Amino acid sequence: MSAALQANEPPPPVLRGGEGAVAVLTLDRPASRNSLSRAMLAALSNELAAIAADDGVRAVVLAANGPAFSAGHDLKELTAHRADPDGGEAFFRECMAACAAVMQAVAGLPQPVVAAVEGIATAAGCQLVATCDLAVAGDTAKFATPGVDIGLFCSTPAVALSRAVARKPAMEMLLLGEMVPAEEARRIGLVNRVVPAGQAFAAAMDLAQRIASRSAVAVRMGKRAFNRQLGLPLPDAYEAAGAVMVENLLAEDAAEGIGAFIGKRQPVWRHR
Amino acid sequence: MSAALQANEPPPPVLRGGEGAVAVLTLDRPASRNSLSRAMLAALSNELAAIAADDGVRAVVLAANGPAFSAGHDLKELTAHRADPDGGEAFFRECMAACAAVMQAVAGLPQPVVAAVEGIATAAGCQLVATCDLAVAGDTAKFATPGVDIGLFCSTPAVALSRAVARKPAMEMLLLGEMVPAEEARRIGLVNRVVPAGQAFAAAMDLAQRIASRSAVAVRMGKRAFNRQLGLPLPDAYEAAGAVMVENLLAEDAAEGIGAFIGKRQPVWRHR
Amino acid sequence: MSAALQANEPPPPVLRGGEGAVAVLTLDRPASRNSLSRAMLAALSNELAAIAADDGVRAVVLAANGPAFSAGHDLKELTAHRADPDGGEAFFRECMAACAAVMQAVAGLPQPVVAAVEGIATAAGCQLVATCDLAVAGDTAKFATPGVDIGLFCSTPAVALSRAVARKPAMEMLLLGEMVPAEEARRIGLVNRVVPAGQAFAAAMDLAQRIASRSAVAVRMGKRAFNRQLGLPLPDAYEAAGAVMVENLLAEDAAEGIGAFIGKRQPVWRHR
Repeated sequence: MSAALQANEPPPPVLRGGEGAVAVLTLDRPASRNSLSRAMLAALSNELAAIAADDGVRAVVLAANGPAFSAGHDLKELTAHRADPDGGEAFFRECMAACAAVMQAVAGLPQPVVAAVEGIATAAGCQLVATCDLAVAGDTAKFATPGVDIGLFCSTPAVALSRAVARKPAMEMLLLGEMVPAEEARRIGLVNRVVPAGQAFAAAMDLAQRIASRSAVAVRMGKRAFNRQLGLPLPDAYEAAGAVMVENLLAEDAAEGIGAFIGKRQPVWRHR
Repeated sequence: MSAALQANEPPPPVLRGGEGAVAVLTLDRPASRNSLSRAMLAALSNELAAIAADDGVRAVVLAANGPAFSAGHDLKELTAHRADPDGGEAFFRECMAACAAVMQAVAGLPQPVVAAVEGIATAAGCQLVATCDLAVAGDTAKFATPGVDIGLFCSTPAVALSRAVARKPAMEMLLLGEMVPAEEARRIGLVNRVVPAGQAFAAAMDLAQRIASRSAVAVRMGKRAFNRQLGLPLPDAYEAAGAVMVENLLAEDAAEGIGAFIGKRQPVWRHR
Repeated sequence: MSAALQANEPPPPVLRGGEGAVAVLTLDRPASRNSLSRAMLAALSNELAAIAADDGVRAVVLAANGPAFSAGHDLKELTAHRADPDGGEAFFRECMAACAAVMQAVAGLPQPVVAAVEGIATAAGCQLVATCDLAVAGDTAKFATPGVDIGLFCSTPAVALSRAVARKPAMEMLLLGEMVPAEEARRIGLVNRVVPAGQAFAAAMDLAQRIASRSAVAVRMGKRAFNRQLGLPLPDAYEAAGAVMVENLLAEDAAEGIGAFIGKRQPVWRHR
């Protein structure tokens, strides 16, 4: 961290800020459209790991500086490695693994993540939005998986996209690569809310703060349980989720929260 | 049943009525917002078991008396058991198991179940609506999974919700706990139809009667096959569903139905 | 093929046409509402196998002549086999297997398939639309799974329907059998686009041509990867899709496409 402050060091590609219990991660390479270069992925990975270990953080907003939320992989960086002795294979492999790890770190993060999208979110940038727990978009934001335009089908973005969006609209995005306006993105389930352009960050902060005002223990258990039960057969899903409910009921915050509800007073959550 | 008529016996929490081949189950604890107490869950379990064994019933409407369809678990009952020697753990476990069993009984019921929702359906009450095969809502009905407000994430409601609704709108309900109006519930797939307030029951009865007018054998085979093939890989799903189609084709009602269609007359279904 | 031109031979039930790299398959039994008879299924199966082996084809449009896209299985043919010694069982089994094989051949076809729907698409005809990668409908097109009307629940159509459409709207179609207008079909995810009646074919051709103008290698890898990762746990899905991305990056077309993008010129794809 302090190294980044040295004169010769480039500024970090991801800024960490926040207010109270909400951490804000801001992609900050506007000149390269916040492409998910190796440096950007490494920075995201580090920041997510730090947040995962930080009990003081109860919700995360993922935002971006500049006209693009993120344009996906860094094509120039990928292309430069075609000169490697193996034609880039090892680098491509490393890059895809790093990207998939970041996406799974978002999904596996104990705290919910809310994307705040202005401008374009394309390819792996769109994948990042699809991966976040919630997403808010400015009304001029646009989404696309345009890999087909450059001979590189968005197969990894498809993993996240097909889990957020029904099959035919997902295939339409993948096969045609067209820009999907914010309202249509909401219709198909890719974003939760559309607000006037320029207000996505404020709206995402509002959602994150509301989440952060709740019992951290309940929210963490819940996010984890939600992801764990998806795709399980119904009896297994109920067994897994039921065990979490019992654990949650036995936690201090549920006793406090239910007691407060019955007593018609405001609950006071423990600070973790 | 006759015991319930004795003077000292409380009236049953679930009323069983019906018209013709449609059974109607009505949650009848308006004063406690039809909360899913142990007594309510036991009554539902018993009624569902009786209906499952009753070939005369071809469709079910699940309705409720009072301003709330159901507010979910009985928080006072849960809280009272915190005084148990184990802090309530055994009761919580029993309660979650009973609730999950009722949900799976609805899903596994041979007959389709249509929810008729007026007022609020929250937490496990919302889960019940998500679990029914079809749902009709009055236009002032509201849906929520507000466990986060009381430190108890709606992890078991999430099982049903995430199977009815796409991931981001499901997470939005779970993380924010906000009331979702009927029309938005329809948009995200939680209910099928929205009708003027006060007409949900009539509309649900209409759907149930139409279902009940069809071949019971075909409807039962179909509901079971639908749930069995979900989540299977495509070849396995087709193998399972194909076997059901052959069995259905060999049943008397398909011969009658197809014959009637070809002969341009009304089919006459066997009575089971 | 040449056999079909002999005087005594009936014309083929499926016409194969096309423009450039787009193959067009047209169901051509308007008098029997393009029902999926054994002959129709066999013709579809043959044409799909030929297309799968044809590197010159990069996208497929599936269309139909006459007022019905397809009314599903041939009920007269099925009924005729009730006179078989086994009451039709062997024929029913063969018929369901042939139909499921055609549906899986569409899903497994290397090239994307775009349905162009005018008129009604019902039962297995609706299943065929649900199975295609994309679907365009004229605004007077209608969709239904009305097997319940003839005592034969649409259990195999449900396999495709429930993978395209959320659970409650899918069950509504299956239990009620009602006609769903094109716009509602779009809302629930069964079709991608609705165009003025009579223009579905032109609109589907436009989509197919756009797909065909892209790198065939990328599109093929992408469709296969999309279907393979569906339903896998997230880490497995990313592992599978990541391997495809690396393979795709190492293919000639990605080098050309990315190079063209960086160089701000039009890419030139290899012809396979």
